Amino acid sequence: MRNKKISNAAVGRIVLYYRTLKNLEQSGEKIISSGKLSKLLEFTPEQIRQDLSYFGQFGVKGVGYDVENLRRSLENILGLKYSWNLAIVGVGNLGRAIANYKTFSEMGFFVSALFDVSKELIGKKINGVKIYDSENLGSVAKRKFIDIGVITVPEDQAQKVVNVLVDVGVKGIWNFASTKIFVPPEVSIVNEDLAVGPTALSYNLSKN
Amino acid sequence: MRNKKISNAAVGRIVLYYRTLKNLEQSGEKIISSGKLSKLLEFTPEQIRQDLSYFGQFGVKGVGYDVENLRRSLENILGLKYSWNLAIVGVGNLGRAIANYKTFSEMGFFVSALFDVSKELIGKKINGVKIYDSENLGSVAKRKFIDIGVITVPEDQAQKVVNVLVDVGVKGIWNFASTKIFVPPEVSIVNEDLAVGPTALSYNLSKN
Repeated sequence: MRNKKISNAAVGRIVLYYRTLKNLEQSGEKIISSGKLSKLLEFTPEQIRQDLSYFGQFGVKGVGYDVENLRRSLENILGLKYSWNLAIVGVGNLGRAIANYKTFSEMGFFVSALFDVSKELIGKKINGVKIYDSENLGSVAKRKFIDIGVITVPEDQAQKVVNVLVDVGVKGIWNFASTKIFVPPEVSIVNEDLAVGPTALSYNLSKN
Repeated sequence: MRNKKISNAAVGRIVLYYRTLKNLEQSGEKIISSGKLSKLLEFTPEQIRQDLSYFGQFGVKGVGYDVENLRRSLENILGLKYSWNLAIVGVGNLGRAIANYKTFSEMGFFVSALFDVSKELIGKKINGVKIYDSENLGSVAKRKFIDIGVITVPEDQAQKVVNVLVDVGVKGIWNFASTKIFVPPEVSIVNEDLAVGPTALSYNLSKN
């Protein structure tokens, strides 16, 4: 396996490859051709080949990919054998929705702390997880060994919150605020953009 | 422009191209090379070229893309010159978060109706938009000319709700339920998968 760090976009594609392979495996598929995988994933075979080539040689020319082997390799590559502590900062509707999302724990993501500025919320629990005062974000995040900070605060608070998390050593930021967030190079960030989904629908609808 | 329908995944990429070009244009960029665009977007130049080739000839060999022209073309292609009526079915945390998402109206997406089964919620308003009884989903969706149904109900309700919307002519489904939804070929569906973001971070963190 090469040590070269690949882009967030490529990782996003590999997550999709992984989940598709998991479904294929559960339906009993053993081998999939690169053409079939390409059709299923809606990426060109070249794009898939390039993405996988970072991690080694998976496909067999003229045969295809071994579904279980590739799924296992991607699971290792994606770090899904570890478990990760998440802190959700901003317990509004979106923060609550994420705190209640069941699939996370199955995949090894544990919501370990919630944070908000509202005096009515502080001390309450969601799904058994306590809401802390955002004033204590740094110290609690450190004590709880938070790996990933989920940013669901208003736009104008987002950078400030990220800075506090980064200062105490949080290395992953999952950002839902529609604003550009700056992080040092050793910190990873994933920006969610809720406008992509409806725009894809807008495209399809305007064609009909 | 070819009439061939392109895949959801390709449309997703074109949405990203569009938003990136809009940012470039706002920063005063006139021309961008395909290599620079590729680096910025984190897709191979071949993938970008293939995606754009469905709609015509945009780039000039050895020069690159005209930022404003390409942005305008993509805006037309994506149908963002139209406005679209959204109905959110399921006024839980996620439904509320989407109902309150500001960027949608700027892009031409209008939340026109909300639906829930809870007697305490029916008749109330969020952001000035009324919550209707899910019992009346079909008739209200028809009367309100709903284009896109946003599915934020529990998994076991999702297919039922989609069937009602499809029956009254809704042509776009934005699905947040973690379950496979079946729609007839004339209906477009976008499935959101909240697990992709943290898995991308898991990958990056496990490398360090």
